[in-house]
Amino acid sequence: MSSEFGNILHISVFGQSHGRAIGVVIDGLPAGEEIDLEALQRFLDRRRPGKDGLSTARKETDIPDFLSGLEDGKTCGAPLCAVIPNADQRSKDYGELQDKPRPGHADFTAWAKWGGHADMRGGGHFSGRLTAPLCVAGGIAKQILARRGVFVGAHLASVAGIPDRRFPLRPTAELFEEVAARPFPVLDQEAGERMRSAILAAKNDLDSVGGVIECAAVGLPAGLGDPMFGGVENRLAAALFGVPAVKGVEFGEGFRAAALRGSENNDPFTVEDGCVRAETNHAGGVLGGITTGMPLVLRAAVKPTPSIGKAQRTISLSKLENTDLTIHGRHDPCVAHRAVPVVEAVTAAVLLDMLLEGNHGTF
Amino acid sequence: MSSEFGNILHISVFGQSHGRAIGVVIDGLPAGEEIDLEALQRFLDRRRPGKDGLSTARKETDIPDFLSGLEDGKTCGAPLCAVIPNADQRSKDYGELQDKPRPGHADFTAWAKWGGHADMRGGGHFSGRLTAPLCVAGGIAKQILARRGVFVGAHLASVAGIPDRRFPLRPTAELFEEVAARPFPVLDQEAGERMRSAILAAKNDLDSVGGVIECAAVGLPAGLGDPMFGGVENRLAAALFGVPAVKGVEFGEGFRAAALRGSENNDPFTVEDGCVRAETNHAGGVLGGITTGMPLVLRAAVKPTPSIGKAQRTISLSKLENTDLTIHGRHDPCVAHRAVPVVEAVTAAVLLDMLLEGNHGTF
Amino acid sequence: MSSEFGNILHISVFGQSHGRAIGVVIDGLPAGEEIDLEALQRFLDRRRPGKDGLSTARKETDIPDFLSGLEDGKTCGAPLCAVIPNADQRSKDYGELQDKPRPGHADFTAWAKWGGHADMRGGGHFSGRLTAPLCVAGGIAKQILARRGVFVGAHLASVAGIPDRRFPLRPTAELFEEVAARPFPVLDQEAGERMRSAILAAKNDLDSVGGVIECAAVGLPAGLGDPMFGGVENRLAAALFGVPAVKGVEFGEGFRAAALRGSENNDPFTVEDGCVRAETNHAGGVLGGITTGMPLVLRAAVKPTPSIGKAQRTISLSKLENTDLTIHGRHDPCVAHRAVPVVEAVTAAVLLDMLLEGNHGTF
Amino acid sequence: MSSEFGNILHISVFGQSHGRAIGVVIDGLPAGEEIDLEALQRFLDRRRPGKDGLSTARKETDIPDFLSGLEDGKTCGAPLCAVIPNADQRSKDYGELQDKPRPGHADFTAWAKWGGHADMRGGGHFSGRLTAPLCVAGGIAKQILARRGVFVGAHLASVAGIPDRRFPLRPTAELFEEVAARPFPVLDQEAGERMRSAILAAKNDLDSVGGVIECAAVGLPAGLGDPMFGGVENRLAAALFGVPAVKGVEFGEGFRAAALRGSENNDPFTVEDGCVRAETNHAGGVLGGITTGMPLVLRAAVKPTPSIGKAQRTISLSKLENTDLTIHGRHDPCVAHRAVPVVEAVTAAVLLDMLLEGNHGTF
Repeated sequence: MSSEFGNILHISVFGQSHGRAIGVVIDGLPAGEEIDLEALQRFLDRRRPGKDGLSTARKETDIPDFLSGLEDGKTCGAPLCAVIPNADQRSKDYGELQDKPRPGHADFTAWAKWGGHADMRGGGHFSGRLTAPLCVAGGIAKQILARRGVFVGAHLASVAGIPDRRFPLRPTAELFEEVAARPFPVLDQEAGERMRSAILAAKNDLDSVGGVIECAAVGLPAGLGDPMFGGVENRLAAALFGVPAVKGVEFGEGFRAAALRGSENNDPFTVEDGCVRAETNHAGGVLGGITTGMPLVLRAAVKPTPSIGKAQRTISLSKLENTDLTIHGRHDPCVAHRAVPVVEAVTAAVLLDMLLEGNHGTF
Repeated sequence: MSSEFGNILHISVFGQSHGRAIGVVIDGLPAGEEIDLEALQRFLDRRRPGKDGLSTARKETDIPDFLSGLEDGKTCGAPLCAVIPNADQRSKDYGELQDKPRPGHADFTAWAKWGGHADMRGGGHFSGRLTAPLCVAGGIAKQILARRGVFVGAHLASVAGIPDRRFPLRPTAELFEEVAARPFPVLDQEAGERMRSAILAAKNDLDSVGGVIECAAVGLPAGLGDPMFGGVENRLAAALFGVPAVKGVEFGEGFRAAALRGSENNDPFTVEDGCVRAETNHAGGVLGGITTGMPLVLRAAVKPTPSIGKAQRTISLSKLENTDLTIHGRHDPCVAHRAVPVVEAVTAAVLLDMLLEGNHGTF
Repeated sequence: MSSEFGNILHISVFGQSHGRAIGVVIDGLPAGEEIDLEALQRFLDRRRPGKDGLSTARKETDIPDFLSGLEDGKTCGAPLCAVIPNADQRSKDYGELQDKPRPGHADFTAWAKWGGHADMRGGGHFSGRLTAPLCVAGGIAKQILARRGVFVGAHLASVAGIPDRRFPLRPTAELFEEVAARPFPVLDQEAGERMRSAILAAKNDLDSVGGVIECAAVGLPAGLGDPMFGGVENRLAAALFGVPAVKGVEFGEGFRAAALRGSENNDPFTVEDGCVRAETNHAGGVLGGITTGMPLVLRAAVKPTPSIGKAQRTISLSKLENTDLTIHGRHDPCVAHRAVPVVEAVTAAVLLDMLLEGNHGTF
Repeated sequence: MSSEFGNILHISVFGQSHGRAIGVVIDGLPAGEEIDLEALQRFLDRRRPGKDGLSTARKETDIPDFLSGLEDGKTCGAPLCAVIPNADQRSKDYGELQDKPRPGHADFTAWAKWGGHADMRGGGHFSGRLTAPLCVAGGIAKQILARRGVFVGAHLASVAGIPDRRFPLRPTAELFEEVAARPFPVLDQEAGERMRSAILAAKNDLDSVGGVIECAAVGLPAGLGDPMFGGVENRLAAALFGVPAVKGVEFGEGFRAAALRGSENNDPFTVEDGCVRAETNHAGGVLGGITTGMPLVLRAAVKPTPSIGKAQRTISLSKLENTDLTIHGRHDPCVAHRAVPVVEAVTAAVLLDMLLEGNHGTF
């Protein structure tokens, strides 16, 4: 069992990059939830490659086809299955790769695991393309959460080391929408320009860059999550490492906290309008794995796209000898910006799952 | 369900800091495994507070009592239960804390969740003390792994921003043992001295510091882990965020990878002695969630101990008004060094669980 | 999470009877397994309604469309998704049923759970039609098991109280095939004739009958299953109660054992050709939840089809008052014979899942 | 993972019959629930062997020792651990059994699984003794359920083929208490006398008898349970087969339904006091895996105790040859009556778990 997560809300992703279709089964959605398919499509479009040279030239319309679980635009309690056909497959680009694992990709590990039976054309089941069905699930979760006053948003915290501003102490649903509507999802658009230049420069060098995504959720009740291994952090991290290219996950100050003193990192509690709040949010809205009611803040590190145009050293699996590889075909000089809605999607799905468990008393 | 993890090997931790006892149930251990109780005790002693002023003055011998699962020093197939009595409880130190949640602790979130019924004396079930039974489980897992040629070790990658060296490309079991035998678990002992000074300085200021732990596992087969949400990273992260005070987890270059180019971050494959290896290990031994056969390398960020001697702003839960709090009692000016074996323990337990699943072909 | 089962091998079923399609995602199949699609189709055809008046007149070709997970006729490691379109839907037959829950069906409980949002046309997600994708999963599992020497077969142990012979002490793969090839799956064909008459008599009375299915698996190693809640019985029962209309599951002598004495019910051990065997198999091949190496034998009780042509008392959900209901449309006077391959399918899927866990040593 | 069940409420049982102690960890209990320890002890005493010759002569006081999770008599949110020491162990009685597996026991299957490392003294982890900690968990669950208006009770439906009356259509909490207070848990005490005679007759013959337990739960909301594999029946069956000696589980009419016609087995709906009810309850309160709001009714078949005084044929594991075995030591001529509270306990634990999941709307 691998391509699945969730407890009450269970999400199973299937498909290979160059197979017939990719898709998702979502089991455990509450019944009677209206799904705004146009809004969902707008959300899905945020992860599609753009026309600005920052992304792959592969063209996919990525319109999900709902086979079950939706009746008259509403969830009906039964598992929802959405399928996205694979249209623009150019498998001929990938012939040499059968034998030569691309550095930084799962080609070798899939081969080690599945002994040559893996369908690794275009990255196979490990392809970033599998994030499209994830976004179907997460986009639906976002709509259901929003109806309950919980909003999830994200931006590029950095690309190639160029930082965006951080989210304010109390980001709003409006801010999330504003960023989501931008062609490049940053708070500081000038920083965004520099990031884009860095991506294009890498592309020009037949190379790639990575980035960090900051995601926040507002409107969560305090008390969500269970101690130790059932915490919000545990469950979000477990799911977020399922997004291809994510190599690190942190909450609140995260790794920066390790260099702070307790007096700097602790968030003083305070009473505001009769509610318990924190003056700062270094904890990222989570203490002991359980939400404080402050915004949940996390960051995910996305490595530079392993597919680059430069020649690389690799091996021949059949001959077990060293060789060189130059990857042709279409690839993204950076995937971090396209991964922004994916991180939102996964975060939303995990949070909805936890809220549906109903053992926190206030949802 | 919260204080548990694992699939084939399932670990349940119980107890509160000032309750009668803490302990662990380990279900799914292979039968017939000899457990070296002296070696296990030496491992447990590594997380006990030392006498050097770097840790709490609370004294606990922490000798586990095995109620089940061990016969004649060997596992017998049935679940193993180990109990550690709580000896040195000074609950009177904690009276005021009933009403005043300590900033940075789970006091408030436990209250939000459990409505005042939580036993939060000494941190209750959220206390770092619960890492003792975790170390029982992980120490046993380490012995079983070692018998299969898999070794897990860790060191302090940094304290208060002061960095240790990183692990070499191919750390050895000997290196792990060497570091484990040191009173302060670093590679560069001179850096260790500076870390210790930073801890004592913070203590002197009635403050605390955090740190980063780097953990590695060698001897793993290639092909361990499942795609997407069943990967080695997903499952390790899910468990590691269960270690109190961990706020970030990364693999290989982790967050640094986000600032690298693909040509820098990709690890070229090469054939060595007829085996597939990587020339570098920026991936930390994991691609697509599946092990490459190179050393698994991860880092966990530990926040500065929230218990500090300085006065802090907090609230009264009963009066819902702002107030001040000065925490008395014993606490650690840093927990990162004591968390080193805990991170090893959790890593070992997760890896053994995954190896026992047996769907990778080579264990 | 509901329409799913399995640990290493995870099976998710989706679809509604009158929705666009039904299907299944199978995650965790070993890679490189050849799937004989013609043999699979023959297996699926066993549960399709026949032309002999014993079953519904609904016509569905039920040919699965594989969207992922199969490459060149072999499993590729990635999750397999198979979709079966719904062709012959006559939803107009079901208008009145929106408001009047059919006795013995899930109409009322789905309404209680999902508050009127359920798509219950034709039984919705609770329809026996959902057993078609289950048979896709189980049919694949059967092929993989057979390659490892494990064979699963079943027959009608009784219909309307008319008993078939029981399986012999050591049924063979050949016997399983022989029964499977028959239009009516019994050992004693004369008893089968009487069962068919009973079904037709019930149909003639606008009524229905039930039956019991006996299923066996041979070739299993001893030592499969875990104690207490992880046993073969626990996991098979949990899955078998997912087959619509199953109301009882028993192993070996099952309920009959309750009326035996220990000296009658105990199976003496004996050595045969250097192997440990039992002289009898009242235990059904399971002791303490773990396989003995003798044939696994279970029985599942299938209730009479709740859809009958006779007028029945029910209520109007909208008016909350008593009313009558006569169900028109097509239905099966008995589903037990069609459920025979379904019980085989579920049994095979659970057994393969347990074998893949690999903690029994000999698979 | 084996000796555990539950999703939100997770129960792990540990211990061997002749080890130091047996016990249970219960994770996920709601906080603030008062546990009446005296009532719990009375419940536990129901499964203890009596002094009437109907049970083993082994004497155990079976008073649980609470190590965690209870503060001032209330649950505190953290996992509850209860330990029961093993007092009266006579391991010398079991010497010969190391090599000679007892027919009908798990001795051989544990050996097949764990290769001789199993601690099978007194049945080891497979012993009926492990039902004592199960009763701790279930007894606590019963108290929490009762506070929410849900009551669970059971009686002996038959012993040695001698039937008790069945529960009435609507059993009450009072009836459950009345039966529970009797030394022999039947509805028809005259039938009970005949059952007792049958047990004593079997004992006199150095033999044993089995029985069937009928269990009911009243006060459940309609809408509890999920379709297909997440139903009430699936989850109860999965747990009930964890009770040693259970070989069959059925709901409502169960196996009898297979011989009924649809018109006999369907329960007409009716409106009573503005609520939807069924006129009969052949479904046992479950349709499509989901509760109807009618009493939940199930039966579990308990095989005759495999430990009998008569000589039996078995094998020598070391010599792999046939031999005879006469079991000395203390054993129960029947365990069905002692298993009555165990079935209640497991049923209560599963139901509480499902109610805590909170996806049914009305709890």
